[in-house]
Amino acid sequence: MTIPNAVEAFDAVDLIRQKRDAGTLDTAQIDWLIDAFTRGYVGQEQMAAMAMAIFLNGMDRREIRDLTHAMINSGERMSFEGLGKVTTDKHSTGGVGDKITLPLMPLVASFGVAVPQLSGRGLGHTGGTLDKLEAIPGWRADLEPEEMTRLLREVGGVICAAGADLAPADKKLYALRDITGTVDSIPLIASSIMSKKIAEGTASLVLDVKFGGGAFMRDFDRARELAQTMVDLGRDSGVNTTALLTRMDTPLGLAIGNANEVRESLEVLAGGGPADIVELTVALAKEMLALAGQPDADVEAALRDGRAMDTWRAFVAGQGGDPDAALPVARETHTVYAETAGVLTRQDALPFGIAAWRLGAGRARAQDPVQHAAGVDLHAKPGDTVRVGDPLFTLAADEPARFERALEAVEGAFEISADAAGWTPPALIAEKIG
Amino acid sequence: MTIPNAVEAFDAVDLIRQKRDAGTLDTAQIDWLIDAFTRGYVGQEQMAAMAMAIFLNGMDRREIRDLTHAMINSGERMSFEGLGKVTTDKHSTGGVGDKITLPLMPLVASFGVAVPQLSGRGLGHTGGTLDKLEAIPGWRADLEPEEMTRLLREVGGVICAAGADLAPADKKLYALRDITGTVDSIPLIASSIMSKKIAEGTASLVLDVKFGGGAFMRDFDRARELAQTMVDLGRDSGVNTTALLTRMDTPLGLAIGNANEVRESLEVLAGGGPADIVELTVALAKEMLALAGQPDADVEAALRDGRAMDTWRAFVAGQGGDPDAALPVARETHTVYAETAGVLTRQDALPFGIAAWRLGAGRARAQDPVQHAAGVDLHAKPGDTVRVGDPLFTLAADEPARFERALEAVEGAFEISADAAGWTPPALIAEKIG
Repeated sequence: MTIPNAVEAFDAVDLIRQKRDAGTLDTAQIDWLIDAFTRGYVGQEQMAAMAMAIFLNGMDRREIRDLTHAMINSGERMSFEGLGKVTTDKHSTGGVGDKITLPLMPLVASFGVAVPQLSGRGLGHTGGTLDKLEAIPGWRADLEPEEMTRLLREVGGVICAAGADLAPADKKLYALRDITGTVDSIPLIASSIMSKKIAEGTASLVLDVKFGGGAFMRDFDRARELAQTMVDLGRDSGVNTTALLTRMDTPLGLAIGNANEVRESLEVLAGGGPADIVELTVALAKEMLALAGQPDADVEAALRDGRAMDTWRAFVAGQGGDPDAALPVARETHTVYAETAGVLTRQDALPFGIAAWRLGAGRARAQDPVQHAAGVDLHAKPGDTVRVGDPLFTLAADEPARFERALEAVEGAFEISADAAGWTPPALIAEKIG
Repeated sequence: MTIPNAVEAFDAVDLIRQKRDAGTLDTAQIDWLIDAFTRGYVGQEQMAAMAMAIFLNGMDRREIRDLTHAMINSGERMSFEGLGKVTTDKHSTGGVGDKITLPLMPLVASFGVAVPQLSGRGLGHTGGTLDKLEAIPGWRADLEPEEMTRLLREVGGVICAAGADLAPADKKLYALRDITGTVDSIPLIASSIMSKKIAEGTASLVLDVKFGGGAFMRDFDRARELAQTMVDLGRDSGVNTTALLTRMDTPLGLAIGNANEVRESLEVLAGGGPADIVELTVALAKEMLALAGQPDADVEAALRDGRAMDTWRAFVAGQGGDPDAALPVARETHTVYAETAGVLTRQDALPFGIAAWRLGAGRARAQDPVQHAAGVDLHAKPGDTVRVGDPLFTLAADEPARFERALEAVEGAFEISADAAGWTPPALIAEKIG
């Protein structure tokens, strides 16, 4: 990377004004901006103003690509070229009950493809993959680069935290966006996600871009635009990328939390599990394997015959965990029962995500700990028929004092219709991009 | 002022999102925001994002009034009610060669009206009134409140720096806007100017809102909107406010600098001086006196008969200056002569302002000193006929090394037309608002 003159090449205020007035920033300007921001020469307040200007005035395809590459260039770039395996990865924009990475990674890796899955911790109502896995006694998210390479070779997959050297500008910018109301911007989301995925060195990538009430992007068209932006960005950068647009109106599966989501993932790896989780896991696995050169892989068979489970066990053990250890169970539970009979026609993802979060499954601040046994277990899904007195869902927490605010969160969040016989929920997977 | 719960009443990110999405902020939200920003609970980066959202999405009349009052409430409010005199004040949005406050204040005060003129120092190409006055040996800008009251009673006027307690939120926000590309926003400019003027406790106010190439607001319609916004704001807040929209395409008067602008002001106070300076001084004085209850004051007479000059001398002496002391003269001068003959049809304010600034009359950073003798003296104004070899302007500086970059600034900044006989420049005062 060559930065013309790191400190004096441009003036931050000029660049902010340019974007403020709906202009485009050229490659050299974006390179300078991100480098100067990473070094602290462009201040937090200046980058906040720029982020708001980008939020409101947008960026074109070339600007988004330049921003992404500038963030990649702020740190180290990983490479798995010496691995002797094809690499593929998946990223989800996040949703309630989204534990898909847990069964998906070992399933795909069981076909001899390497899956270097860098994941994050949760903040707010959507849980983090690393938080869920940390419910497994001994399992650890931090891997040295050599350890990562060895596990990719021997096990086929890792799920680990991104190192501090991976796109540090993105880390700094994301933290700033979080406190300045500039998160929900397509150029900023796309460049943030893709800078980490491209820097990670994967050859191909499947995106699970969610839409609906429990998703980051509620609106389908906006989610579609985000998906298309990221697919373009991946391809412009040499990463073969496709995206599935999937519905996030209702929680995925029956478990929302951490330990309970691991349990549900194990059911899927054992050939069972809720239909929606299986459907999405299989669809994403097929996409990933197709990009990795195995378009005809019999994914369902690997779930049935235990190959995916074997890879899971090797993965857990490889990262210090005990695959046979009992998962933590909450001290207290509180079950809510149906007061009317009919078909469950609505079960809103966001309130249930907030309930799990209030029970202790999530964190309000980045430094907060997570209570691994806390969460919500659903007993019925949209489309199910319930009778009066049937259990609808169970809250689990270590401290019973948490139940009240969790129950407040889910008040009005579901609907049982007496006259909805035959009603079925809309398709989970709405569209494929790329 | 009652703030519902200073720290936890609102969430900064929610308020930023609200304005980002083109919503309006209510009174309690704006009160909280400005109080929390002043205390440091709302961070600089958050206020920068908010300022950009305000810049791009605007504020309505009620929001602007609330913002202004929240900034007033961040500090002390002055009062001249016990003075036994009517108070009036003037504010200019700033231009090149704008020394109008110097003859205007004593002129108006000579009619028995109190003029508590709080002024600023210059930054960039427009000079500051206090910088100009500091060219007078001994004169000082900092007055204690009691001193200010005494001088208003005895002399009739003061020109001094605003105390740190006057609208501190505005000081903090202005410094932030300066580095985040959020200066040129009508709601933010209007609330910044008017918060100080209302807090200062003046009963009436005349605004000189400039438009054209050397003004803050180049566009006439934008300047008009700013003027109307400030007039509304003043009246909504009990300050009888009017505005003149005046042209700032060409420097005001013949002197651009500090000591030379004082010299030119003395010519006006002695009954002479350049026609444009006299025209604007008289027009603003009549407006101020009309608002102060003297619509028929014979302003021109007070310039002719020495009353205004007497008040000037009392004012300079009252603030520690010697009205008879010689003003500083630059060590070096460089004169530019006409190379063609004709009518001077263009003399751009901004380049001449930049030239004076580069000669040492202005400062690049707030802490820089100003060279009082540096500046530009014009020998011809638009509409004047010049012959080959006539002097056009003279640069003055203590260091001759400064001439080169000053000359670069004015290259192409003026035009002499051979076939423009009879051409006259457009009217200086374009419109009155209120």
